[in-house]
Amino acid sequence: MKIILASSSPRRRELLSHIGVDFSTAVPPASAEASIEACRYNPTEFAERNSFMKAGEVAKISPKDSIVLGADTIVVLGDVILGKPKDGEDAKKMLLALSGKMHEVITGVTVINNKIGRSITSHESTEVFFKKLSSEEIDFYIKSGEPMDKAGAYAIQGLGSLFIPGIKGCFFNVVGLPLFKCMSMIRDISED
Amino acid sequence: MKIILASSSPRRRELLSHIGVDFSTAVPPASAEASIEACRYNPTEFAERNSFMKAGEVAKISPKDSIVLGADTIVVLGDVILGKPKDGEDAKKMLLALSGKMHEVITGVTVINNKIGRSITSHESTEVFFKKLSSEEIDFYIKSGEPMDKAGAYAIQGLGSLFIPGIKGCFFNVVGLPLFKCMSMIRDISED
Repeated sequence: MKIILASSSPRRRELLSHIGVDFSTAVPPASAEASIEACRYNPTEFAERNSFMKAGEVAKISPKDSIVLGADTIVVLGDVILGKPKDGEDAKKMLLALSGKMHEVITGVTVINNKIGRSITSHESTEVFFKKLSSEEIDFYIKSGEPMDKAGAYAIQGLGSLFIPGIKGCFFNVVGLPLFKCMSMIRDISED
Repeated sequence: MKIILASSSPRRRELLSHIGVDFSTAVPPASAEASIEACRYNPTEFAERNSFMKAGEVAKISPKDSIVLGADTIVVLGDVILGKPKDGEDAKKMLLALSGKMHEVITGVTVINNKIGRSITSHESTEVFFKKLSSEEIDFYIKSGEPMDKAGAYAIQGLGSLFIPGIKGCFFNVVGLPLFKCMSMIRDISED
């Protein structure tokens, strides 16, 4: 069966390519986004529902003989969800909030077996520890441009690695696609 | 000050490049290897001493105005140190030993400020969790060729990611160079 990645993220594509998976990509419509109110402000439910909507929209226009993989990654600090920063000022606020603290990265994942019309939705959660950042470090990081298109305003696989002494859980989940989880789910739904 | 990476590992070079560090490389002589007996069979001491010997040998032939970074990564299961597999059979034994268990990856790190003749040696340790592997998975993995030049016979950044639900600690340490630790140590010794 063909695997179709329902995502516009170059990082997700790169991760899947890296482990030798043969797949194609389809970009879900921007409207495939859940409302946090409808998820009772529950971050995990929000990420899962988003992944379900992305995969579902793409499954509708995909061939029967395919498995569609949708994912949505969010950064959660306490009970606040951090999205992508709007501008440098916004990125600074996010990095100041993350500084010296632990936060969670949650990716909701949905796989759909289009042949039998069945789906599985789940999530992966990783704890990420940030060192205390100086204003110079934050300014330098924002100037690098790296924070701008990243949820939580950092990339653990880039310069952001210098702020992070350690994590607890799946690393690739923090990059945007929990490889172990995704491939287990794909295996499970292929065998049905 | 110039940074010189005392290592022949392409993975270490790639990691340092990735975070925009300007450095050159020098390969330490093969003789820069501690004996595990002299380290009283203590894995951490062994990795630290190896890093010290690698950095020391390279520092001797490096310019005054440089910082030399040496690293040695080992995989430790219980009290056994797993090196690089000799052949497919050996890789199979290692993967069977790691299957379904947690092990530790330890990197000894030494930085030498050649200008003032001072060095710092430390280490980073990460816990890695392996799922239970089937013989088919092990055979498939060995056929991929990935295990052959890796300590412990796996690469967390490659297909090995499909065996690892999670880690506790620094991810880049498992790849071969704990970036957060290294850059903190370089900063510390530059300021002396």
